[in-house]
Amino acid sequence: MMKTRGCCASICQCFFEYSTPKILVIRSFKVGTLNRITQALVIAYVIGYVCVLNKGYQDTDAVLSSVTTKVKGIALTNTSDLGLRIWDVADYVIPPQEENSFFVLTNLLITLNQTQSHCPEVPKTGFDCTSDRDCKAGSRDTRGNGVQTGKCVKYSAVDKTCEVLAWCPLELDKEPPNPPMLADAENFTVLIKNSIRYPKFNFNKRNILPYVNKTYLEQCVFNRITDPDCPIFRLKDMVTEANEDFQTMAVHGGVMGVQIRWECDLDMPSSWCVPRYTFRRLDNKDPVNNVAPGYNFRFAKYYKNGNNEETRTLIKGFGIRFDVIVFGQVSFHRNNLIIILDYSPVFSIPL
Amino acid sequence: MMKTRGCCASICQCFFEYSTPKILVIRSFKVGTLNRITQALVIAYVIGYVCVLNKGYQDTDAVLSSVTTKVKGIALTNTSDLGLRIWDVADYVIPPQEENSFFVLTNLLITLNQTQSHCPEVPKTGFDCTSDRDCKAGSRDTRGNGVQTGKCVKYSAVDKTCEVLAWCPLELDKEPPNPPMLADAENFTVLIKNSIRYPKFNFNKRNILPYVNKTYLEQCVFNRITDPDCPIFRLKDMVTEANEDFQTMAVHGGVMGVQIRWECDLDMPSSWCVPRYTFRRLDNKDPVNNVAPGYNFRFAKYYKNGNNEETRTLIKGFGIRFDVIVFGQVSFHRNNLIIILDYSPVFSIPL
Amino acid sequence: MMKTRGCCASICQCFFEYSTPKILVIRSFKVGTLNRITQALVIAYVIGYVCVLNKGYQDTDAVLSSVTTKVKGIALTNTSDLGLRIWDVADYVIPPQEENSFFVLTNLLITLNQTQSHCPEVPKTGFDCTSDRDCKAGSRDTRGNGVQTGKCVKYSAVDKTCEVLAWCPLELDKEPPNPPMLADAENFTVLIKNSIRYPKFNFNKRNILPYVNKTYLEQCVFNRITDPDCPIFRLKDMVTEANEDFQTMAVHGGVMGVQIRWECDLDMPSSWCVPRYTFRRLDNKDPVNNVAPGYNFRFAKYYKNGNNEETRTLIKGFGIRFDVIVFGQVSFHRNNLIIILDYSPVFSIPL
Repeated sequence: MMKTRGCCASICQCFFEYSTPKILVIRSFKVGTLNRITQALVIAYVIGYVCVLNKGYQDTDAVLSSVTTKVKGIALTNTSDLGLRIWDVADYVIPPQEENSFFVLTNLLITLNQTQSHCPEVPKTGFDCTSDRDCKAGSRDTRGNGVQTGKCVKYSAVDKTCEVLAWCPLELDKEPPNPPMLADAENFTVLIKNSIRYPKFNFNKRNILPYVNKTYLEQCVFNRITDPDCPIFRLKDMVTEANEDFQTMAVHGGVMGVQIRWECDLDMPSSWCVPRYTFRRLDNKDPVNNVAPGYNFRFAKYYKNGNNEETRTLIKGFGIRFDVIVFGQVSFHRNNLIIILDYSPVFSIPL
Repeated sequence: MMKTRGCCASICQCFFEYSTPKILVIRSFKVGTLNRITQALVIAYVIGYVCVLNKGYQDTDAVLSSVTTKVKGIALTNTSDLGLRIWDVADYVIPPQEENSFFVLTNLLITLNQTQSHCPEVPKTGFDCTSDRDCKAGSRDTRGNGVQTGKCVKYSAVDKTCEVLAWCPLELDKEPPNPPMLADAENFTVLIKNSIRYPKFNFNKRNILPYVNKTYLEQCVFNRITDPDCPIFRLKDMVTEANEDFQTMAVHGGVMGVQIRWECDLDMPSSWCVPRYTFRRLDNKDPVNNVAPGYNFRFAKYYKNGNNEETRTLIKGFGIRFDVIVFGQVSFHRNNLIIILDYSPVFSIPL
Repeated sequence: MMKTRGCCASICQCFFEYSTPKILVIRSFKVGTLNRITQALVIAYVIGYVCVLNKGYQDTDAVLSSVTTKVKGIALTNTSDLGLRIWDVADYVIPPQEENSFFVLTNLLITLNQTQSHCPEVPKTGFDCTSDRDCKAGSRDTRGNGVQTGKCVKYSAVDKTCEVLAWCPLELDKEPPNPPMLADAENFTVLIKNSIRYPKFNFNKRNILPYVNKTYLEQCVFNRITDPDCPIFRLKDMVTEANEDFQTMAVHGGVMGVQIRWECDLDMPSSWCVPRYTFRRLDNKDPVNNVAPGYNFRFAKYYKNGNNEETRTLIKGFGIRFDVIVFGQVSFHRNNLIIILDYSPVFSIPL
């Protein structure tokens, strides 16, 4: 009992203690002046140089980057629908320009000569029918291709499905061709032009380095060992560097990341500041759960036939989107800031 | 007088004072060794583990995210211009693919069969005329639709306007239809696939969670209570969650933000790391100043008629752009860093 | 020798020294209570107000911005290929909508009536030939325009080149017209609508300020002195502010950055929070190394002729891409945080 009370009292005492360092105050004009001058210098430096001149306090909004890309290459396809056909950049880059990315079509399912008309739905649970009673006029299922007319019609010799108002003939729901139709895409090259700008330091740099001339740029291809500064990349090389197989990826499509990293120390010569390229696959191909793989989208080309009737060619395009991601880190007065943060005891006095 | 001088002197004295904590120096081999070992351990930890292994100093450039989207749904419109018409994904998603956003057409003003020819301007201040003298050949007003020919022609029984060289007939400057033409768009669904990757931690995750199988993905729709992990969203649900009315927003268009937030603690099991979705309207509908509301843009489909003459269909498309914004925060050695920052007095010595 | 040992010993002694400030412990109930109350207040403030209410610890993911743009203007071109032709927004903005940028076509090389057929390659090293033996059937050079058929055919009266399967006739590899074809583009205007939102503070603001009404918005053009709040910009003005010449830039194209900076102090009236616009050229025109200048891309318009044969018009489009970059900085409790960080000695006791 006695002990508990003693312990309690001790904790209480401890709780209401106040500790403060013992301060030695030196009332010397010389030492005081020296102290104040040092402080004034540091403050003047912080305010004048770091904050006002370099705007060291607003470091984040300073990097400006612009990316433009240009793909080159020709692919040849030979199908029963289209015959022998050439694909060039205006055919396979969709849309023709984007801000920081580009898409290259590598595989496709094509449905020719669609018109707004009536046709039987694709056989699938929910669209099969035996009589008109199974179909509901006006019904529009999100999984369907059109608005039901209420009729039950022959799809094939065996199947009957509900009729729809749609772009007919309907696209057949099938797997994309394997090998991919534009297998030639692996040899396409892309010129990536990237300029960075640090308005604060009035520092500009682009990834076409000063020594790269027109002749070199016309025939070079990026290679980590022989041509590390060439800004022209073979699509297959980029995919291979990300440990993926181009032809496999081309079947269902995917998303690649092209990382450009600038790490420039402005205290060093400007020629030391060069971009480093790395490539990664960004869309996850989960080996465990491979649901909804790849990347595809539908687009159409619209025509008018002789009767002023609109027809279209529907394309389900599979392909690889390359997202160009620029990282920039320019160090210059970072060290200065560290000095300031570390500034605490300027001088010590032996007692 | 005497007092002022005393006060002044006191302030001066205060200003030139130098305060420094009294330091106790212990010259003990044991205590000193203990001190240095502790310091060495902390430094080794900071350099070796946090900086080298985890690269704790370059935390910002580490998150890689990829977003792909796929809209599904059918809309039916019935207008005097177009008759009964079906709209599918290739018709209403413009452009067919973008990096982190997608646009769904919800309303439109259509001008059919435009050709490069001559026609009277739309009646508006500045384009009205009574004789050719009021029109200036070659004049191109930014508010106009073409280049004036210098003639004054009949627009209607009452109005005369300056003739222009333009895509004729001109688009009529009128309000978009209300209710919106593609009112069915509220039932469209979109599958949003998002993969994040932290190369530093070799950590991958996608928003299609491991337990989600193909069957579930074919029929599920996101619902905050019953299906919080389904990555398929009904357009109307997203707009409603942002406290907006879909049909109202569809008339003039707008911009929606789809926020995906990943907050993952890598010290916890990976299955705890799930995305959270929130929806907001991004373009401001200012109740006080409703000038220039909504979102619309013009695009055209180009045709050639029998005479090899180019015609086009101009569409002023109103719709909702959905910007997918991914936030990622993976915490792992953050705690470690805090420990270091808090490291100041390792041990204290009772005096 | 003696001295060295003395110095060594001195350094050793110094190394194993342990310095700690002398601490004065005051065992007074009053002073201790005051100390603890002060500490409790600060902790309560940090946890309760800054962390919980304002979520001061997650400052980064808070800014949401949306940008939409609308270009207006008419250009007139007169070429032998196309005759007199009007270009409006649906013709020169490609693609018609993007997330944070827009592209305006300023110059072009057009190749009309291309079909999939056979034609001689453009004369260039590697494509010249004297007999069929110089051409390799099936060869597809990345610099070429098609797949070689193996034949050597007449290109002109003097030149013979390898025949290719391609979109024929081939595009001629020539310099873009100077002056640019759409020189009128300098007078195009663009309305940039930008909304920012800080969900944390429930703070919304858009760059169409409250006092801007419909009448003003219909006729104003941004001018740094007379109309600093007008969100409509003349393309030429933007380029001129970046110290570039519009007509020169329009020939080969380029990338412009439109920076919108919001610096809002929420402790001040909301009307003080206005956007500031600055313009910069983002793609580097290196005066030393002017390799691969400007910005261009190829796109095509597809037609079907009377025989249901596909033809296309290929356009190599040069133009200016405007990237809108929004910086936001809303300060509110930043000051509060600084106070906390600076909190160390609450009160000092004269000894």
